[in-house]
Amino acid sequence: MEFRRETDSIGEIDVPAAAYWGAQTERSLHNFPFGPAERMPVAIVHALARVKLAAARVNARRGLDESLARAIEAAAAEVVSGTLDDQFPLVIWQTGSGTQSNMNVNEVIAGRANELLSGQRGGKSPVHPNDHVNRGQSSNDSFPTALHVAAAVELHKALLPALDHLTRTLEAKSAAWSDIVKIGRTHLQDATPLTLGQEFSGYVQQLRDARERLLHAEQGVLRLAQGGTAVGTGLNAPEGFAADVAADLAVQTGLAFVPAPNTFEALASNDALVQLSGTLSTLAVALTKIANDIRLLGSGPRSGLGELDLPANEPGSSIMPGKVNPTQCEMLTMVAAQVIGNHQAVTVGGMQGAFELNVFKPMIGAAVIRSIALLATGMTSFADRCVAGIEPNRRRITELLERSLMLVTALAPEIGYDNAAKIAKHAHTDGLTLKEAALDLGLVDEATFDRVVRPETMV
Amino acid sequence: MEFRRETDSIGEIDVPAAAYWGAQTERSLHNFPFGPAERMPVAIVHALARVKLAAARVNARRGLDESLARAIEAAAAEVVSGTLDDQFPLVIWQTGSGTQSNMNVNEVIAGRANELLSGQRGGKSPVHPNDHVNRGQSSNDSFPTALHVAAAVELHKALLPALDHLTRTLEAKSAAWSDIVKIGRTHLQDATPLTLGQEFSGYVQQLRDARERLLHAEQGVLRLAQGGTAVGTGLNAPEGFAADVAADLAVQTGLAFVPAPNTFEALASNDALVQLSGTLSTLAVALTKIANDIRLLGSGPRSGLGELDLPANEPGSSIMPGKVNPTQCEMLTMVAAQVIGNHQAVTVGGMQGAFELNVFKPMIGAAVIRSIALLATGMTSFADRCVAGIEPNRRRITELLERSLMLVTALAPEIGYDNAAKIAKHAHTDGLTLKEAALDLGLVDEATFDRVVRPETMV
Amino acid sequence: MEFRRETDSIGEIDVPAAAYWGAQTERSLHNFPFGPAERMPVAIVHALARVKLAAARVNARRGLDESLARAIEAAAAEVVSGTLDDQFPLVIWQTGSGTQSNMNVNEVIAGRANELLSGQRGGKSPVHPNDHVNRGQSSNDSFPTALHVAAAVELHKALLPALDHLTRTLEAKSAAWSDIVKIGRTHLQDATPLTLGQEFSGYVQQLRDARERLLHAEQGVLRLAQGGTAVGTGLNAPEGFAADVAADLAVQTGLAFVPAPNTFEALASNDALVQLSGTLSTLAVALTKIANDIRLLGSGPRSGLGELDLPANEPGSSIMPGKVNPTQCEMLTMVAAQVIGNHQAVTVGGMQGAFELNVFKPMIGAAVIRSIALLATGMTSFADRCVAGIEPNRRRITELLERSLMLVTALAPEIGYDNAAKIAKHAHTDGLTLKEAALDLGLVDEATFDRVVRPETMV
Amino acid sequence: MEFRRETDSIGEIDVPAAAYWGAQTERSLHNFPFGPAERMPVAIVHALARVKLAAARVNARRGLDESLARAIEAAAAEVVSGTLDDQFPLVIWQTGSGTQSNMNVNEVIAGRANELLSGQRGGKSPVHPNDHVNRGQSSNDSFPTALHVAAAVELHKALLPALDHLTRTLEAKSAAWSDIVKIGRTHLQDATPLTLGQEFSGYVQQLRDARERLLHAEQGVLRLAQGGTAVGTGLNAPEGFAADVAADLAVQTGLAFVPAPNTFEALASNDALVQLSGTLSTLAVALTKIANDIRLLGSGPRSGLGELDLPANEPGSSIMPGKVNPTQCEMLTMVAAQVIGNHQAVTVGGMQGAFELNVFKPMIGAAVIRSIALLATGMTSFADRCVAGIEPNRRRITELLERSLMLVTALAPEIGYDNAAKIAKHAHTDGLTLKEAALDLGLVDEATFDRVVRPETMV
Repeated sequence: MEFRRETDSIGEIDVPAAAYWGAQTERSLHNFPFGPAERMPVAIVHALARVKLAAARVNARRGLDESLARAIEAAAAEVVSGTLDDQFPLVIWQTGSGTQSNMNVNEVIAGRANELLSGQRGGKSPVHPNDHVNRGQSSNDSFPTALHVAAAVELHKALLPALDHLTRTLEAKSAAWSDIVKIGRTHLQDATPLTLGQEFSGYVQQLRDARERLLHAEQGVLRLAQGGTAVGTGLNAPEGFAADVAADLAVQTGLAFVPAPNTFEALASNDALVQLSGTLSTLAVALTKIANDIRLLGSGPRSGLGELDLPANEPGSSIMPGKVNPTQCEMLTMVAAQVIGNHQAVTVGGMQGAFELNVFKPMIGAAVIRSIALLATGMTSFADRCVAGIEPNRRRITELLERSLMLVTALAPEIGYDNAAKIAKHAHTDGLTLKEAALDLGLVDEATFDRVVRPETMV
Repeated sequence: MEFRRETDSIGEIDVPAAAYWGAQTERSLHNFPFGPAERMPVAIVHALARVKLAAARVNARRGLDESLARAIEAAAAEVVSGTLDDQFPLVIWQTGSGTQSNMNVNEVIAGRANELLSGQRGGKSPVHPNDHVNRGQSSNDSFPTALHVAAAVELHKALLPALDHLTRTLEAKSAAWSDIVKIGRTHLQDATPLTLGQEFSGYVQQLRDARERLLHAEQGVLRLAQGGTAVGTGLNAPEGFAADVAADLAVQTGLAFVPAPNTFEALASNDALVQLSGTLSTLAVALTKIANDIRLLGSGPRSGLGELDLPANEPGSSIMPGKVNPTQCEMLTMVAAQVIGNHQAVTVGGMQGAFELNVFKPMIGAAVIRSIALLATGMTSFADRCVAGIEPNRRRITELLERSLMLVTALAPEIGYDNAAKIAKHAHTDGLTLKEAALDLGLVDEATFDRVVRPETMV
Repeated sequence: MEFRRETDSIGEIDVPAAAYWGAQTERSLHNFPFGPAERMPVAIVHALARVKLAAARVNARRGLDESLARAIEAAAAEVVSGTLDDQFPLVIWQTGSGTQSNMNVNEVIAGRANELLSGQRGGKSPVHPNDHVNRGQSSNDSFPTALHVAAAVELHKALLPALDHLTRTLEAKSAAWSDIVKIGRTHLQDATPLTLGQEFSGYVQQLRDARERLLHAEQGVLRLAQGGTAVGTGLNAPEGFAADVAADLAVQTGLAFVPAPNTFEALASNDALVQLSGTLSTLAVALTKIANDIRLLGSGPRSGLGELDLPANEPGSSIMPGKVNPTQCEMLTMVAAQVIGNHQAVTVGGMQGAFELNVFKPMIGAAVIRSIALLATGMTSFADRCVAGIEPNRRRITELLERSLMLVTALAPEIGYDNAAKIAKHAHTDGLTLKEAALDLGLVDEATFDRVVRPETMV
Repeated sequence: MEFRRETDSIGEIDVPAAAYWGAQTERSLHNFPFGPAERMPVAIVHALARVKLAAARVNARRGLDESLARAIEAAAAEVVSGTLDDQFPLVIWQTGSGTQSNMNVNEVIAGRANELLSGQRGGKSPVHPNDHVNRGQSSNDSFPTALHVAAAVELHKALLPALDHLTRTLEAKSAAWSDIVKIGRTHLQDATPLTLGQEFSGYVQQLRDARERLLHAEQGVLRLAQGGTAVGTGLNAPEGFAADVAADLAVQTGLAFVPAPNTFEALASNDALVQLSGTLSTLAVALTKIANDIRLLGSGPRSGLGELDLPANEPGSSIMPGKVNPTQCEMLTMVAAQVIGNHQAVTVGGMQGAFELNVFKPMIGAAVIRSIALLATGMTSFADRCVAGIEPNRRRITELLERSLMLVTALAPEIGYDNAAKIAKHAHTDGLTLKEAALDLGLVDEATFDRVVRPETMV
């Protein structure tokens, strides 16, 4: 392998000749040997490149040499496009400000810009990673800006579409099944009836509420730290830099980014990401409930509840032939558990900021981005490979409904709670139908019973 | 002790003659022997009584005998007022729907109403706990309604005032200290300067953002399950019950309660409380950061950072005479840890709903109410007994600022990042001032140095 | 109300004349106004008094005036006995070292000892709370010692007996039901059979493993910080103090307390309590699984699985007459959720130690003690009011077993996995019994089928 | 791309011709489209192959055709060696039993064995993935067995060596610095002195205790589910299979694997992994404390505590030239936060087992393996790149020690706590040295002061 020599303030270091990166990236690779499985999510790298792209344009209007600015822009655009993804080998577990990933992006953009300008890959001239690419910036504002940009972009590109897709899929089922009266269950015990459509409408509402919460949590993420530079004072950032970069990022992404109202908060805390993570965790809570219900309703095929037939996507067992399992539900609830766990990690990181900087940023950012990706893929797959293919087992639903004792509730307003309870108890103990028990005890006449105890009017 | 005999659908049971409660309360006391330390929070009991008060008025307009309705109203109002608090001995750890606490309230109100009407305490006549007090309701909608009412009331009565008080206290300090230039610290290492006022302005922003998040989370809590009855269908609830009860509760509390848009969701999930709890957890994250900073800045008195003098509220040590500790910071961060833990409990409970009901409601409700109370008292005390009395140690602040090497950052735009780094390194290694190092290396002339490196212009 | 004047290094303060406590307790009451619901658990107060009792005896052998030592012993013994519980009004949320609770105990013991010696309640003479009661100690070693003593005592007094009781109760059921063959369920789907006794034997094993883990976690808790005094160096503690106090505590409690091998660790970390809390959390995980299974198996009575009949302890619904719910399961799973949440609080506190002291001790101690108490009462109640009364519904169990398609698994070694799968699929699709499907497809002869597919030989 | 046709009980599917895997693997790839970043950890794949290797040997002794057994062995050994790692494309988020990863391994081993035997890659003949490779097994016992094997192997291969290395590195520092007397700090406030060696000895003890806890948690992991097959009854597993496979795995790995005492527990619960994860979380708590202390002690260089000089591994800032940050501490505390979060995920998964199987196994296994890997790499790097290079700043340490007021503690046994407190207060308020204040107040004579107040005798 061939190498070239690069330098930083620590000294010289050999970098692979083919690499665009420079000394600081190379150094970080040696200092944090976690291996490729732990790489910084590419969504964060792309977002950092978007920041550099915006900064180059803004700096060009403030005296940065135009040819350098153009080259930075071109190189940054390449990074955003994904063609240079292999130039970002750094891992999540590095300095807590993300400085090394910021420098990786600065170095690669400089290295590529220098190649564009001079034919020579890498180096610091004519484009310098700090003086030109990072101009007006610090890792301390660029990196949290990139985390916010990445989170908002992934939210809109991946999570919300998946959430909407699942919502609509459940909603279609809710509408289609509005006439299927079934037994309700509370405490897992038989209760009064409802329609299958109503049951699923609850899931739809959970997801709609989740969406509303996410959009509110996103508000905090749209506020960018950029412009605060090293400690929030904006030292070395030109006048108006914050607003102009935010505006450029808004144009780039179509999202309403604005400068954070207080840059000290924006560097020292990651509360907006903690809240977003918490809101993803609430969504995970909702998805767990929904997937659990569906697999319980689909339990069987012969010795469970059996109200729903779930799609059979794959053989279910390596030993029990013919078994089919609710694997999409299992995938989704496992995803939910990890998202809940990630939120704990984010919380633990978020609370440990000190003075002018929180130094758990790469972990927080990576966990949020992973949670978003897991939920997005999980919800889409669950919608398409489970919910969309669910069929109600109408025969079974009716059988279970008709057996129920809780239809007695409809009698309570007529004959009082205590008398109604006696009927239910009598039926349960002696294996009678409700009607048999009611007439046997003489607590209601047949005509009244028939008029009142009608599941279809109880929903 | 004297007893009277009460009955429920299980059978007869002896109840203390002096008690207003009935058979189901008594039974629960025996079935869940956790002792008085684990009682259902009184805020939830009062909120349940508010529901009964509202229901009595609404039922009176729908055929409930007016004298009974009046008696229920009077008894419920007494419960709300707190004079009957000793009549609610049930614990958090009971049935997961809160049925027993709902029945405790039904029974006490009936028992007191019967006393008002007949002179006879307790019993089911003329006022019946189920048929009259619980009329049109189920535990499954009344209890989650009460949790939402209790949470919203405590939010407005306790949490938000405390949050605002702490915010204003910090804001006053931020304003008062806007001229105190001090060293910034990132990664706990010396960084470029900012003012002490700017540092505290970050805390203010964290709390303002927390407030905004809480108000949004409250939106979900203002939506009430009432009207869904047993499974969400509203069986046995009269037309318009949900809207009328919500309206009455809004009048009672001054809070904008409305019926939940989907009653199935409102019974089967507790997502709104999970999100509120998550938002309290984000606030706990912010408070941890703030309290940690303050105790670090107040560390010393002689061998720490010593930039702030914290109030000495009590002797600090049983062995080290004269020691004073940042005890309010310690209290607040302990509170924060418990709130973060409670959120985990709420999350675990929230995800385990099944079918038409989540049966972790008492735990969820009690944890949220405790978190609110801990944060409210904690923030108020921290504001009054710590923040308000903090004094900056100007001498120490200036001493630390002047020593710093990171003022070199101001030179980077003039002489480039790499040259500036050389100056800092030279100063550090050889124990020089920045200026000495800069001139020694010949990288900048004295006039430029004096013009550029001025902390007061770097903030 | 009458007052007397007490003093500490901050100055004078009025204390209720009837109180045994002194200035520091009174000051703490004002500084941390959380109210009686948040009091330091009495188990910790008693454990602190045990430390003082031990220290008085050990100090008497090292020159403490014997009459003072005797009076301290007598007063401490009263505190241990519980007769002075109302003298400990301080809350959990105080200084993070527990100094104020340590001083509360020092002051009450001094105040009572002074009364015994002089007839005068309270004060610092002849017995001084610091110089005599706290002699050779610091809050920094006494308080963590008390947390360990309290945790170990409650473990042996409350948790392990409850765990053993539940284990034995489940074991008796497992033994009694060893002949009941039932359908197994994996992924909630029908699987090959097992006995009900085998199913419950898994629960027994979970609890036995939990016991073993708790006993190992206890090992860390048996190591006491006492002797480290202020920072771990043992300054002002006499030679041999640590060993003698540990030995005395061992005699007092019957538990094998020893001095911590490293006092610096014992003050600065609470890892042993974090691990104990984590082990309680693992137990909570196991209990959740067990209680969930039991409530699912008891679901119905007519439209659920219905394999078990759970005891009906109370009316289940305020609106659905005759409903009975698995309330002990609900209580236990709510308890488990809170224990899991408490572990998160303990983790967050445990990680935030700094230098020579972790200052989250009161929160950590209180959370662990509450988790132990909740689990102990919860398991006992669950054993007595649920498990002991469970009856298998043999008719239903047989009905579900005979329906199952997964008995086909027994054929796989005979005819291969793929052929067996065809039979199951055919039976499922066409509503056949397994045998019908097998013969229909000609994949096995009747004699072989009858020989091989016998549930009772598959367990 | 070329394909071949493979089949399973669902039907036919095209598989890339170059792949060794079969229909079920291919199907899973389509059903769970999470992408390569979410692959099942290779440690689990290798452990599954170890199980297959063991099973082939054990089955050969029970009638499995020897040539097939030999081919399976050879193919499984190749998987263990890592040469076929690219044949395991399945992700964590699949069926909750890990059936698809089990089948992926079964299929690849069959596919490779078939190639060895017939020259034809893939397929089911002569070696069938279920009938031969999976013989005597179910995913339900093989997969949890593999998780235990993987966890134990990684514990011994990666975690314990790293833990021991860090322990020794800290121990060497503790020994080297046993004579450096420094100020102690409790509540972040100045306290009585100790040596730097003593301070570091606390860290060593934390890690030693962590090791002991891990070895105990490992005991549970050494118990293997193998032999339980589908539901724990061992249906279709030959006599003695469990013991023989465990013995073979013990020989393969050098670890003391044994059959689980109760196979029902071993399938239905993952408590042993939950406990291991909790023990990793306790280690993360300890590491957070240690890394936090070190970065605080290294804070500065000029305006922090500055007692330690940490190695400068890389440039610290993209904007502040010459800045050096405690990046290894930041990496380690971020790792710790993720491990704590992962434990929450594992807890949430572990509690959700149902009946005969817990279906959160892939998530639990992957989270535990990731936590082990992160901690192992993190501790090694922290030891080598931070701890090993730390130098004490003796000048600064002495300066801070001599300033301290808490040396007054040594006077308390001589003149009483209250008098000692007066001296400290006087010195603090009036900016005096302790001695000046003591003599000024006349509370002690100079000779006594000089004899008693000597830091070096206080440690």
